[in-house]
Amino acid sequence: MSNELPSSAVIFLALFGLFYASFDVLVEGRILGLKSNSEPDDSLVYLWPLPSQFSHGEATISVDPGLSLDLGGNGGDSSIVREAFQRYREIIFKHSSGEKADYDLNKIKILVKSDNETLHLGVDESYSLYVAKQSDLSIFGDATIEANTVYGALRGLETFSQLCSFNYGTKSVEVHKAPWLIQDEPRFVFRGLLLDTSRHYLPIGIIKQVIESMSYAKLNVLHWHIIDEQSFPLEIPSYPNLWKGAYSKWERYTVEDALEIVEFAKMRGINIMAEIDVPGHGDSWGAGYSDLWPSPTCHEPLDVSNNFTFDVISGILTDMRKIFPFELFHLGGDEVNTDCWSLTPHVKQWLQTHNMTAKDAYQYFVLRTQGLAIAKNWTPVNWEETFNTFQANLHPQTVVHNWLGPGVCPRAVAKGFRCIFSNQGVWYLDHLDIPWEGFYTSEPLEGIDDASAQKLVLGGEVCMWGEAADSSDVQQTIWPRAAAAAERLWSRREVISAGNLNGTVLPRLQYFRCLLNRRDIPAAPVKNTLARRPPFGPGSCYEQ
Amino acid sequence: MSNELPSSAVIFLALFGLFYASFDVLVEGRILGLKSNSEPDDSLVYLWPLPSQFSHGEATISVDPGLSLDLGGNGGDSSIVREAFQRYREIIFKHSSGEKADYDLNKIKILVKSDNETLHLGVDESYSLYVAKQSDLSIFGDATIEANTVYGALRGLETFSQLCSFNYGTKSVEVHKAPWLIQDEPRFVFRGLLLDTSRHYLPIGIIKQVIESMSYAKLNVLHWHIIDEQSFPLEIPSYPNLWKGAYSKWERYTVEDALEIVEFAKMRGINIMAEIDVPGHGDSWGAGYSDLWPSPTCHEPLDVSNNFTFDVISGILTDMRKIFPFELFHLGGDEVNTDCWSLTPHVKQWLQTHNMTAKDAYQYFVLRTQGLAIAKNWTPVNWEETFNTFQANLHPQTVVHNWLGPGVCPRAVAKGFRCIFSNQGVWYLDHLDIPWEGFYTSEPLEGIDDASAQKLVLGGEVCMWGEAADSSDVQQTIWPRAAAAAERLWSRREVISAGNLNGTVLPRLQYFRCLLNRRDIPAAPVKNTLARRPPFGPGSCYEQ
Repeated sequence: MSNELPSSAVIFLALFGLFYASFDVLVEGRILGLKSNSEPDDSLVYLWPLPSQFSHGEATISVDPGLSLDLGGNGGDSSIVREAFQRYREIIFKHSSGEKADYDLNKIKILVKSDNETLHLGVDESYSLYVAKQSDLSIFGDATIEANTVYGALRGLETFSQLCSFNYGTKSVEVHKAPWLIQDEPRFVFRGLLLDTSRHYLPIGIIKQVIESMSYAKLNVLHWHIIDEQSFPLEIPSYPNLWKGAYSKWERYTVEDALEIVEFAKMRGINIMAEIDVPGHGDSWGAGYSDLWPSPTCHEPLDVSNNFTFDVISGILTDMRKIFPFELFHLGGDEVNTDCWSLTPHVKQWLQTHNMTAKDAYQYFVLRTQGLAIAKNWTPVNWEETFNTFQANLHPQTVVHNWLGPGVCPRAVAKGFRCIFSNQGVWYLDHLDIPWEGFYTSEPLEGIDDASAQKLVLGGEVCMWGEAADSSDVQQTIWPRAAAAAERLWSRREVISAGNLNGTVLPRLQYFRCLLNRRDIPAAPVKNTLARRPPFGPGSCYEQ
Repeated sequence: MSNELPSSAVIFLALFGLFYASFDVLVEGRILGLKSNSEPDDSLVYLWPLPSQFSHGEATISVDPGLSLDLGGNGGDSSIVREAFQRYREIIFKHSSGEKADYDLNKIKILVKSDNETLHLGVDESYSLYVAKQSDLSIFGDATIEANTVYGALRGLETFSQLCSFNYGTKSVEVHKAPWLIQDEPRFVFRGLLLDTSRHYLPIGIIKQVIESMSYAKLNVLHWHIIDEQSFPLEIPSYPNLWKGAYSKWERYTVEDALEIVEFAKMRGINIMAEIDVPGHGDSWGAGYSDLWPSPTCHEPLDVSNNFTFDVISGILTDMRKIFPFELFHLGGDEVNTDCWSLTPHVKQWLQTHNMTAKDAYQYFVLRTQGLAIAKNWTPVNWEETFNTFQANLHPQTVVHNWLGPGVCPRAVAKGFRCIFSNQGVWYLDHLDIPWEGFYTSEPLEGIDDASAQKLVLGGEVCMWGEAADSSDVQQTIWPRAAAAAERLWSRREVISAGNLNGTVLPRLQYFRCLLNRRDIPAAPVKNTLARRPPFGPGSCYEQ
């Protein structure tokens, strides 16, 4: 992600100068404040994640419940933006408005410069947002979003929706602290969340709800850990017995289900990075094809000695390529215990014939699978054990996915690999004892000072492993802690690092948690020592 | 609720005889079965709650994703039924169907006899449902629902949706065990759930989700415990400072919000019974009008000596009457500690002047409030302490709401009062240590043998007190245990009492919990010792 301002920024910053002169009270980037009573502190800026640059005034403007969209630019025909506008209208106008003669803001103008809707890694998500009361002094008025792509426009709409709040006294939606000038773009191109549908099956409605909530925090990659040793829920037309490894006949995803999820996510600017976790997590694969197991009593890792194993992997990749357009594909590679290979006679024989140690065979398996993925035009992502064990031989395009601990991304980028930060000690959501501060203060660029090396860090991902999380609690295990990581990944490092955790960050995160609740997302209280725990007693959402 | 079959039953039972002759394999009311592997036991009938009468065959019929509605009868113009059909279409066809030339079931015919859509206590919720493949032998085909009211039709649509399941192999929606003939009606007219929005504010989206999920279990009354001592979130136009007692300016309900909730519930055949819990739980009332408190340091019970207190109650009741059309209104009356009255000089003086003990004043307060409610054409409901303390003087129309323990309804109905069963030892959802079996096996008619006395038991209500439940966990605290009570309240006593808890009821409840998950409701695992706990490890939804 470039740190240069896009061209739209130049225009807006020029306009900003114009407007700056027009308002007496205009506070630049004010995020400090003190709370005097139990009401939320009005001096704070309740945007999450915090935009990279913003300025505001002190005016209040009312928003017409009949708010209309004026979409223009080369992307002016985009259904992605139009449908997003409808979703945000429902969010913004959840409460019936009172009767009012006229409103200050009747229209939102969105200009999308490009009609290219490819959602690739590093797609331009920048946007400018301007919100002001119509004024004779200005050629502008209403709200304006300008973006290079439809995905930038989506991010701008999210920010706009967060500027709007319902005033229960006037019974109208208002934007406070107007005029707003926001110039925003993400710090990292990869802002991920891992969802595990093998340890517990998640119905597609729940997955969609997770995706929807991700868009509220401007996360942009769902790492779909579809399959693991416990169950194989996905339909693979090339090998139709594979999903016999599902928990039951109802805990499955058809190809059409997966396509629908990809499309649903794309409409929200979110890519799906799918994973097959080979060879170490393949037990469930053998329910349909037992030849994938080294033996009936020793199921993992998948049989490295059998070409059928790679035929199946190739078939899966071929089928998945038709579902998942994102250029990154996760090939797993973690937690490979090779005992099954060393102890099963025919595999042991094969190792001897090929003059391989079990560790060699692990490398062989990973590299051969990488080759299959690369041949299908995929960039392979592998868990860090592959890098830790045989980094010299990994394909140079490999993205190393950190998880075991700190210090891996510095080593990976020093070797020229790209890296994703997911240090389990701070960014594993299933670790319930990691408080929001642990997520918030963890820095993917820690230990990497060189600017060109920093560019190899694609970003980070919080991981929601599913051993003890199912449809009933996955959302409250994810939120609000994932939001803490989301701000780390989106906002400017110097701004978040400067935040006073309890003074300014905590009330903003509490506000965002309550915002999620108002949007039907069951985000858990922020301050509990253990994640997803219920509140200990009665109280305001904004204080728990 | 009458136990007589409605007239539609006669027609259907006659038809049933006709069809019985046409099918070789027709198993009447089979709900027993054994499980042989990890797949759900196909011999069970996965309907929740179990209909009062049903018969089925062994045929499988496919359902057209273009399923249409043919709505007739005097209620043929009902938007309630039409909108419900659209909702259920979305539920039934959540997965994309494969390509198929023709389907067995293309249409659902619904006949609603009455165009009266008043949703009163005891409204006829009976329905008949017939589902079969089109046959030359029959004038019938497709699916047919016949009901006296639109609300019976809603219950029939819910049952129909539960008969439909997606076959991942054929990629089509199927009804198994057809033909189905179901003749159904509830055992109790009042099947309630209490929701507490004072201890924690619940956004309207969350309340709607709870209402939606209630309709899946055929519950029909949301007891909205809006206000309590911790917060006063509702707008009261007559006394506009009252909602200053809200936790914050954003944790409020406008009149329009409340109307919207009432309408949303009505569309699902659910009444809203509102409550003001006086005089004992009124602390938050004084935030707006401190004269309601006996003194600045002693806030509860509300000041019995001040006519202003009753002016405010009257104002609230007047305003609420315009929002809540249901004939039952809850006036609280529980946990009244009169120390504040005895210790505050001006109240103490008033007691002496009126020659009242504090206990007399408690009765005076409750009866005067009952009078205000009755004058507004409301039937008063009071917590059982009022009955326990001064039953002889309670208005004879009073509905006694049990909560403290067993044996109250028998005593209340013996005195001619109507009663609602909510024994906290078995039906309080916030008691996390009550397992689903505790809810399931509790019988509202326990200890009441006389048929005319039994009719005075309106039903029961499970209570979701909100001290430790907010937006993040209210649904998993409610479900699946509320469903156990829902079957107790709907289905025939002899059938549920005969059920083998672990053999047949548990897998059916697990199935219903997974059904809720598939409908985006985060119902918790069934078998956990403590409610709403996450699963202990990986596994199938149908086994946890």
